[in-house]
Amino acid sequence: MTTSAIADAVRLAPGRVDLTAIETDAAPGFDGSKSDGKAALAAMAPELADLQERLWAERTAGSERRVLVVLQGMDTSGKGGVLRHTIGLVDPQGVRITSFKAPTEEERAQDFLWRIEKGLPAAGYIGVFDRSHYEDVLIARVRGFADPTEVERRYGAINEFEARLADEGVAIIKCMLHIGADEQKARLAERLANPEKHWKYNPGDLDERALWPAYREAYEVALERTSTDVAPWHVVPSDKKWFRNLAVGQLLLDTLRGLDLQWPEADFDVAAEQQRLAEEAPVR
Amino acid sequence: MTTSAIADAVRLAPGRVDLTAIETDAAPGFDGSKSDGKAALAAMAPELADLQERLWAERTAGSERRVLVVLQGMDTSGKGGVLRHTIGLVDPQGVRITSFKAPTEEERAQDFLWRIEKGLPAAGYIGVFDRSHYEDVLIARVRGFADPTEVERRYGAINEFEARLADEGVAIIKCMLHIGADEQKARLAERLANPEKHWKYNPGDLDERALWPAYREAYEVALERTSTDVAPWHVVPSDKKWFRNLAVGQLLLDTLRGLDLQWPEADFDVAAEQQRLAEEAPVR
Repeated sequence: MTTSAIADAVRLAPGRVDLTAIETDAAPGFDGSKSDGKAALAAMAPELADLQERLWAERTAGSERRVLVVLQGMDTSGKGGVLRHTIGLVDPQGVRITSFKAPTEEERAQDFLWRIEKGLPAAGYIGVFDRSHYEDVLIARVRGFADPTEVERRYGAINEFEARLADEGVAIIKCMLHIGADEQKARLAERLANPEKHWKYNPGDLDERALWPAYREAYEVALERTSTDVAPWHVVPSDKKWFRNLAVGQLLLDTLRGLDLQWPEADFDVAAEQQRLAEEAPVR
Repeated sequence: MTTSAIADAVRLAPGRVDLTAIETDAAPGFDGSKSDGKAALAAMAPELADLQERLWAERTAGSERRVLVVLQGMDTSGKGGVLRHTIGLVDPQGVRITSFKAPTEEERAQDFLWRIEKGLPAAGYIGVFDRSHYEDVLIARVRGFADPTEVERRYGAINEFEARLADEGVAIIKCMLHIGADEQKARLAERLANPEKHWKYNPGDLDERALWPAYREAYEVALERTSTDVAPWHVVPSDKKWFRNLAVGQLLLDTLRGLDLQWPEADFDVAAEQQRLAEEAPVR
């Protein structure tokens, strides 16, 4: 599969992960300004729309293929912004967004992947996970919601789960939206300064922020342990919102291109139907 | 609630319904060209986005309010086009689209409203029904899938159901996308002429088309019996795709404006949080 310069630049290299060594305010693989970046994203819209419609059409011919975009990142990293600006470019009919909050009692009584299975996109859909099963090795590790043995088990369970999905026809795009601690501080301050954004703020956000180094370590371990050939991780520098939106759009576009999607052939006699339509009794 | 000229023009008048008296290729309430209409729809996007975000924010403060757009219409009337061009203007995070196909065996074993309940939007969402419970008084009547007594019962059941939804905080917008028989013929011919559109065509479409007068009658009765103060019907002339998209956008905008949506007030001490953030230990 041919990929773009951006995809090549944000794909996680194999081996040990050091997030402090990956710049958060960069725009790797893209040689242009903010306005160039916005224009580049907008320019993708027609091809994204065409490819999404082909994916959707394929399902009518029995294809099981689908796409799953996994969005992870610290608070304020911009998962909502990606949904609005990038996923918003695609026909909403063909998109299924699943947001994972703190698990309910019913969900906690099941294996951690139970609710994830239920949120998977059906054939023909572009599914997007706003947070995901990765919370179960991130906050679960940092906050001790699962013991270390269970967290350890989950890395392997995730890899087997994603390998099975890939076998079933799911193209998986995993994105960690990578922001700096200073950028998060600025975004939280902005939410506090603007009454229209107070609803987005929660005092618990600062408690989580105080655990920044522990979250970084949890991300580093998770990224290292679960970046596989069939479902590699991408670390998307996200201090620049425009680059974050562009990069996820490019990853989606590359993935859809790689599926080599074809319009289904008619399973009826086209000429006969044209004749039926031409010769029909008057309808009014 | 103040409504626009378009909304006033497409709202169904009380009393007997004669669809042959409602033009399908008109643009009632809008005094402009196709390009004016497209520009007018695009110009709604920022306000739609703002109001949708307020609706979404309200749910975090415990509001139960939500919007439900019901799209009905003959094949090719453009339900998919409205989803793409009008609903596509709104943040996909806050939208839930439910498409109702022929009911499954499990669904047929329940009351006709069972699957409808399951497809309702949660608080804060704009839900869209692509077809709906109205199929159960349209195709069910035309094709005899339910006997006349049962169909008769359903008009009342629908009115009670929608009245309950309105009491629960659901703002209901019902749109019948009204196309002419000749326009449908042209659209079917276009699907047959273009291999990229063959997947949208089904030979059964022509069998349904042969029942056009019966469907029109079923629509007339359904519209008359179920257009209520809390959930009135709108008949949207849909031969002009741009007007169809604009009119549904305008109805959505009017409805959201009518909700008088306010940003929720902070349920925490803003100054104290600002101080906490300012005085935090260094995070890196």
